[in-house]
Amino acid sequence: MNLIVVGSVSFDTVETPKARKDLVLGGTAVFFSIASSYFTRVGMVGAVGTDFPDEHIELLRLHKVDLQGLASMDGKTFHWGGRYHDNMNSRDTLFTHLNVFENFSPELPAAYCDVPYVFLGNIAPALQLHVLDQVHNPEFIALDTMNFWIDGALDDLKKVLKRIDLIFVNDEEAMQLSGEHNLLKATRAIQSMGPKIVVIKKGEHGAFLFHEDARFYAPAFPLEEVHDPTGAGDTFAGGFMGFLAGCKRVDDTSLRQAMIYGSTMASYAVEDFSVHRLQKLQRSDIDARFRAFHEMTRFDPVA
Amino acid sequence: MNLIVVGSVSFDTVETPKARKDLVLGGTAVFFSIASSYFTRVGMVGAVGTDFPDEHIELLRLHKVDLQGLASMDGKTFHWGGRYHDNMNSRDTLFTHLNVFENFSPELPAAYCDVPYVFLGNIAPALQLHVLDQVHNPEFIALDTMNFWIDGALDDLKKVLKRIDLIFVNDEEAMQLSGEHNLLKATRAIQSMGPKIVVIKKGEHGAFLFHEDARFYAPAFPLEEVHDPTGAGDTFAGGFMGFLAGCKRVDDTSLRQAMIYGSTMASYAVEDFSVHRLQKLQRSDIDARFRAFHEMTRFDPVA
Repeated sequence: MNLIVVGSVSFDTVETPKARKDLVLGGTAVFFSIASSYFTRVGMVGAVGTDFPDEHIELLRLHKVDLQGLASMDGKTFHWGGRYHDNMNSRDTLFTHLNVFENFSPELPAAYCDVPYVFLGNIAPALQLHVLDQVHNPEFIALDTMNFWIDGALDDLKKVLKRIDLIFVNDEEAMQLSGEHNLLKATRAIQSMGPKIVVIKKGEHGAFLFHEDARFYAPAFPLEEVHDPTGAGDTFAGGFMGFLAGCKRVDDTSLRQAMIYGSTMASYAVEDFSVHRLQKLQRSDIDARFRAFHEMTRFDPVA
Repeated sequence: MNLIVVGSVSFDTVETPKARKDLVLGGTAVFFSIASSYFTRVGMVGAVGTDFPDEHIELLRLHKVDLQGLASMDGKTFHWGGRYHDNMNSRDTLFTHLNVFENFSPELPAAYCDVPYVFLGNIAPALQLHVLDQVHNPEFIALDTMNFWIDGALDDLKKVLKRIDLIFVNDEEAMQLSGEHNLLKATRAIQSMGPKIVVIKKGEHGAFLFHEDARFYAPAFPLEEVHDPTGAGDTFAGGFMGFLAGCKRVDDTSLRQAMIYGSTMASYAVEDFSVHRLQKLQRSDIDARFRAFHEMTRFDPVA
């Protein structure tokens, strides 16, 4: 195992302008681990209730996701409900039933403590710190967070930032975290808080990688239909981290490719609800879209 | 002369959250011709009033812009006023004094009628048609338009579209013109109206080129400060068409490079008001930023 993810496992109830799906499989750890499973062996740290069906466990096993870190707790699985607006770019959260996730504390099985690649999904910064206290000399730590923690747990978040290599944030979160309204200034401010690599996710407008002085931009893949954006960010992180963990190398070349693999996986994720499209991919599908990204962005630098 | 532009010459009064400039040089033909002057010899078709100062004429001459097509008419020069919102991505038009531009009819000097590259700036489609009736077998015709003409002159616009090779539109205009809400579907619908090449401008989110089945995406260059977005679209078109006219070749390779040269010129334009930054460039500045775009988007397609 090269990689672990810590994050939610949930039932999602999702309404879009065209359809509604009740209690489908979701959560950071699920999107991330299925996306990364195409590149490497991944272990999942999370919690589910007694209502979590065997078919979901089977699906994760089919993707060779290690489930030693998945706690089964008395009670119900985390249930999130949201409704997308007409443009599919924004949504309202209708409800958040944390259920067993409310008392979740990430305890790592011994086998997870020596993994080189660690992804801290969007949970309380105090819990992210608790994970870092359990891992021994990981090579590369990435983190996701959100406005809720930037507002309500900034001191803890700043402690985590000092100990990580990469942060995934969207543009609004980057500005909120840094207090800067310009993306370049926001990024420099965040780098000064700890992570030398900053990935700014811009949804349908792609994503920026800042690595010391290098900048790399990955567009979003244009699609005829977006069916459900839920989990796109976690899927992006899964493709990104899965690729890096698989090639066991973090440098300018691999980081650029990781951005494109992340974008590739995210583009597949939004083509259907839940992990329905993601779970049916072949590695050849992934590589075909990776090459399509290259075709879409390449130009001859000698005019 | 390889290229002509037909469009407005104006005084712009621009307010941004940080500054205000009164009666600075602007207009489609100005931004376009100064941007394209770095790549080729360009002729300008437009009209100014008796109040148009010699210093602006001198500036255009310094850039070797051919002014045979610039009519000097009794009355005042077109004057536009606008105010940008806090994010600099949207603006309100405060006033539009068409002045001499109200009665402008583009009459081409004989020397312009055989140019191979033609850019029809955003004017009434009937006037764009009038230009096309004067040129003899141009190799490549590009057009810009806006919601005002899509709403109010759609029949004429459809006639022009049948006779052109490329259309520049922003994403909202593309959707309005096609009636499609998805960018790919909108593009195909527009291609079926005539132009085989569609460039969708997305402002700070870059631009898409669709050329038959090929797609190319150029990001916007990230800047620490955007001082004035006025003219960015016309400047993009100027860099794009100037480069194509200069290399005298329209194919997949040159179109991709034209997208990047267009983005390069637009990124410089917004760094100051009016053409203040644009007019002071060296070709080496342009090529340096062109290479920076390559550095920002390149990745190894063999993972």
